This record gives sequence, structure tokens and C-alpha cells, in this order.
Amino acid sequence: MSKRIACVITDMFEDVEYSKPKEAFEKAGHTIIAVGTEKGKTAKGKQGDTEVTIDVAIDEANPAEFDALFIPGGFSPDLLRGDQRFVDFAKLFMDQKKPVFAICHGPQLLITARALEGRDATGYKSIQVDLDYAKANVHDQEVVVCQNQLVTSRQPDDIPAFNREALKLLES
Amino acid sequence: MSKRIACVITDMFEDVEYSKPKEAFEKAGHTIIAVGTEKGKTAKGKQGDTEVTIDVAIDEANPAEFDALFIPGGFSPDLLRGDQRFVDFAKLFMDQKKPVFAICHGPQLLITARALEGRDATGYKSIQVDLDYAKANVHDQEVVVCQNQLVTSRQPDDIPAFNREALKLLES
Repeated sequence: MSKRIACVITDMFEDVEYSKPKEAFEKAGHTIIAVGTEKGKTAKGKQGDTEVTIDVAIDEANPAEFDALFIPGGFSPDLLRGDQRFVDFAKLFMDQKKPVFAICHGPQLLITARALEGRDATGYKSIQVDLDYAKANVHDQEVVVCQNQLVTSRQPDDIPAFNREALKLLES
Repeated sequence: MSKRIACVITDMFEDVEYSKPKEAFEKAGHTIIAVGTEKGKTAKGKQGDTEVTIDVAIDEANPAEFDALFIPGGFSPDLLRGDQRFVDFAKLFMDQKKPVFAICHGPQLLITARALEGRDATGYKSIQVDLDYAKANVHDQEVVVCQNQLVTSRQPDDIPAFNREALKLLES
């Protein structure tokens, strides 16, 4: 069944951590909806390869209208978590046990939402101590699936494993 | 007395969080030595206004030769803490109770060094939950001075207070 996936994103995202999962999700028939600060605004990737037009402003985004949440990495997650609206939005998906996919620095948004306590997770090497302090059970491996709900990966090399496990959850 | 201050820095630092304290420290007669991955390499600020030439490579940097540590913000601290050599370098200053000045995202390096437990600190709004999880006593104010050793601030607006308190420690 086709699922609607909210992708929270702003400038400085890691280009391939957005574009490759998006391609895989769409190929499987799912829809990605970019949620950002302002509808129609463009988010630019940090490598300069990718631009994303925001489909829905965070103020208009209703979590009930989405089946899953996708958080690409780069510096985008740290910029997003400076805005409490994105923190609250992400927390709802975690509280409601909807599928959440976070790669690289993506889990930073979930740390700020205090949503990783007791959960198995991974993330980019620079945030692994943060994850440990945030009471996650940190695993330094390409992908971690927790409670059939949360999929996390560390870096661009891990994208194939990340996509594989995210797609499994979307198909279940 | 003139002090030697190590500044750990790489690309994407927040320009004014380097240039303004540097100006104040030098005006007071102190010396800033840029410590980075490679001597002679240039670190570029995220606003594109400032370039810093690395004076000493981290592999050659001896903490015993410095009186204090300065960590400018931006995305530089997150890049640095992905490299354990910078984490160990920063930890030594904290362990030896030498003055440490960290602004904005600068405290991220100290979190990864697990050096903020029980300490009073502040940082950029996006890392305040990280600081809390890292067992710091977090204060949302322009400058926090802890045990006459650690000076932290939140953002560019706080630079005058940051400089004032850092200079007090250097003069004591």
C-alpha cells in the first residue's frame, strides 16, 4: 500500500541522504512530502547538488495526515531542532509509534524531543556520545531497527541498508 | 601577562564567534594559535567572511604549551568532535582546569569529551537538551562562568559578555 511520508528538511541537508532514500521510497510507490518552515521555499543541500521545494509549512502540517517520518542528515536536523515546532512534530510520530527513519545527524531531532530514552539507535559518529547521554542503546552498525518502528543509520555508506529496513516497515 | 590560547577550528565555524573574541584577546595582549587538522591549511567560516590559517596540526599540538582553549561555534565543533584527537585535546584542558572558552555549538566538543558532568554551562538553543542530557547544569543566559575555569555563551549576541568573562580569567 502506498504510504505518505513526511520529510522534515531545511538547508544544509546531506544531499544523498535525502535523494537516495526518496528515490527508493518513490520507486516502491510511496509519496514524500517535504515539510519545512515555509511552503514553496527551497532547501539547499550542503553539497550543492540538490534542491528541495517545501510542500507543506510546519504550521500547516498535520501529523495525522502522514504514515511515517523521514529525517535526512547533514546540518539540517540541528537547524530544525532549534525550532520547537519541528521538535513537537517529530515527537508525535515517536509517541504514536509511527515509522520514523533517521540517518546521520537525523537522530539529533529525536534527542531534542527526548524520544530516544531506552530505544536502540545509531547515528553519525559525532553524535554517538550525545545518543548515549540521551539514554539510547547505541549500536555502531549500518542500520538499527528498534521495536519495528524506528530505523536509524550512521552515514551515506549505510543508505542501502537504511532503505531496505525502512521499506520493510512501510510494506508491513 | 600575555597568555597563549589554542583555538581549535575547522571549516564552517561561525565567523564572528572566531573573529570578535580573537580581536578582543589580541587587543589585551594574548596570542591565538589556530589548531586544526593540518598546518597551513585554511579553515573557512560559514558566512564566507573569514579564513583562518592553521598554525599547528593537532598531531603536533602539545596542550602543555597553551594556557587556555577557545572553541568557536558554527558547525566546526561538530566536525572536530568526529575526530578523537580533538576530543582528547579538549579533555586535557578540562581535566587540568585550564581556562576553556566555548560559544554557541562549541560545548559540543566538551560533551563528546564527557567533560561537562556537574558543570554549569550554556550553549546554542539547539544543543541545550544535549547539554542537559550530558549532566551539565544548563542556564539559558548570555554567559556562564563555572568554577573560575569554564566560560560558555549561547550565540553571537552574547559575544561582548563572553569576551568580558574570558578576559577576566586570562588576567587572573
